[in-house]
Amino acid sequence: MVEFKGYALTKEDRSAWSSLEVVTFEPKKFEETDVEIAITHCGLCGSDVHILRQGWGSVTYTPLIAGHEIVGKVTRVGAKVSEFKAGDRVGVGAKVASCGTCNRCTHDNEQYCPSSLDTINNRYPDGTPAQGGFATAIRANERFVYAIPDGIDSKDAASMLCAGVTVYSPLRRNNIGAGKKVGVIGIGGLGHYAILFAKALGAQVYAFTHSPSKKEDAKKLGADVVVDTGAKDYQKPYYDTLDLIISTTNVFSPGTSFSTYTSMLSVHGKFVNVGLPDIDTEMPSLHAFDMLTSGAFIGGSLIGSKGDVYEMLKVAAEKGIKPWVQELPMRDLKTALEGVHNGDVRYRYVLKQDIVPVPY
Amino acid sequence: MVEFKGYALTKEDRSAWSSLEVVTFEPKKFEETDVEIAITHCGLCGSDVHILRQGWGSVTYTPLIAGHEIVGKVTRVGAKVSEFKAGDRVGVGAKVASCGTCNRCTHDNEQYCPSSLDTINNRYPDGTPAQGGFATAIRANERFVYAIPDGIDSKDAASMLCAGVTVYSPLRRNNIGAGKKVGVIGIGGLGHYAILFAKALGAQVYAFTHSPSKKEDAKKLGADVVVDTGAKDYQKPYYDTLDLIISTTNVFSPGTSFSTYTSMLSVHGKFVNVGLPDIDTEMPSLHAFDMLTSGAFIGGSLIGSKGDVYEMLKVAAEKGIKPWVQELPMRDLKTALEGVHNGDVRYRYVLKQDIVPVPY
Repeated sequence: MVEFKGYALTKEDRSAWSSLEVVTFEPKKFEETDVEIAITHCGLCGSDVHILRQGWGSVTYTPLIAGHEIVGKVTRVGAKVSEFKAGDRVGVGAKVASCGTCNRCTHDNEQYCPSSLDTINNRYPDGTPAQGGFATAIRANERFVYAIPDGIDSKDAASMLCAGVTVYSPLRRNNIGAGKKVGVIGIGGLGHYAILFAKALGAQVYAFTHSPSKKEDAKKLGADVVVDTGAKDYQKPYYDTLDLIISTTNVFSPGTSFSTYTSMLSVHGKFVNVGLPDIDTEMPSLHAFDMLTSGAFIGGSLIGSKGDVYEMLKVAAEKGIKPWVQELPMRDLKTALEGVHNGDVRYRYVLKQDIVPVPY
Repeated sequence: MVEFKGYALTKEDRSAWSSLEVVTFEPKKFEETDVEIAITHCGLCGSDVHILRQGWGSVTYTPLIAGHEIVGKVTRVGAKVSEFKAGDRVGVGAKVASCGTCNRCTHDNEQYCPSSLDTINNRYPDGTPAQGGFATAIRANERFVYAIPDGIDSKDAASMLCAGVTVYSPLRRNNIGAGKKVGVIGIGGLGHYAILFAKALGAQVYAFTHSPSKKEDAKKLGADVVVDTGAKDYQKPYYDTLDLIISTTNVFSPGTSFSTYTSMLSVHGKFVNVGLPDIDTEMPSLHAFDMLTSGAFIGGSLIGSKGDVYEMLKVAAEKGIKPWVQELPMRDLKTALEGVHNGDVRYRYVLKQDIVPVPY
């Protein structure tokens, strides 16, 4: 039996959600299309916290190892793997496999494949629990493994593979570039990437936040305009202004109306939600009139395809994108988990391997 | 004083909403950019019924003359009018003027101009009440007057100018044509046009209705697939199928979830609502997950621009589009109003001038 180790949730007691223990586990069966990776870094995403706190429903197994912003070195490749070889520096994001043959898989949309498998809190078809990146190693289907360009540090690349691509995909797929105006609602892990990438693509960026300290950060990140959402009628000066709004927030204030956002959109502009609220949290209520006065669209977007990831990494390398990352050893996961839960992170924790020697 | 006549709501008593009386009224001041039209036909739209029943709030004046699907003959043009001359057969839809200079007016989006003026239930800047098409004549800004091609009967053209273009605009603006799949929810005045135009553009059309008689009609109108929305899990066979859904319904059943619709959309497909519910009617509640699994968009669309109208009329003339219209003399407006309110219309009433001799 092959054994991996990782920092796991072992108790179903919800109050102990951030107290992880190192456990030994048997990974998924190695298949001909799989790549095995010795993990050096793994970013911590808000959705890890959602899952560990069981905000999307009970976890279906313990021990459960979170983490899905993974960078490491290839240690083994299956007979059918053509893109990678041992020693390559690669990454894995929030999914590890899909059917590979459906309409979505064959059209740069494998992340939307209904048979796709999440990296964590999910079982493989044979019943093996999927374990994430706060571990010594992982196995993933080649399609969901990404070559990391030389110009990007591993600690920076890690959080791009979920947080980064989640905002990059809607920027790319809505043709954001010079001459476009992009609003970013919520300046956190995702929002800070949205500012960085929208600027890198040449857009004008409007950041929306009610936090005084984040206003300063948004300017440093490159936002052209920073709007205080605590001010009354803050949206009014921005009527008919934005081509795209990326909303990264998980919680909308009671009484929030979509009309606040749609009024700022140009005709047929889009509000794309990439936040993931708890299962019992509704979006603001919606009236037909909210979308009528500008022919607006309200939508969602789910991480990104390999095409999105590779374009993002190319832009990041060429433009020298530097995310704001706090690096900690994996043994400090409790600090990082609570920092994310309390909203103290600026803007992403990346945890470094400390169970086994880092292989480079 | 110039005097026009029309069938007006004269009583604020809401129970008398369908009992109209012929009144004399003074039209808006004639301006250099205006076209005056002797009305021969006017279609009856669901939103006339909403306004007369005061579902969107109290009417702001009486007498109030409804009707905004207008066809007639030009009788007078202002000094700055270049497109029309007396005797031309023309139409007017749901708006009669806009600023003409804003970003929206100068980019084929004058219907979204925040200063645009509705044809009815609206006052001109000088305070004159706007009166609609169940009348002898109307004045409108040249931009909102449309030349009717010879190949289209006046009674057919009339209802295209609101019902027709309201569904044509989202078809055009979402590049619907051969190879695309369009869902139409609700088979009424708008829905029947959505089937006709989507077919004329070469799309495959999926009609959704729970009415047995409308299922037959949808087939006759050209729908390729007719889906009974009364059946349990009716959406399941259509997973990942539709590029665009046009929803014409005003009332969603309690417990309806947007996920029913978004599950049928292809990746980044759009659900465009063109129904206009009463002001206190919410859309189905929305959860972030509903839009996540296919990167779907939910949006709205407001009538259409002159560009939309002219392209629609060209397609209608070339393809010989024949809407299903019931023609009545204007004196039978009560029958028509109650037929629309009770859902008995198949699929549009068009009222013919009977106050003054029809000028052709």
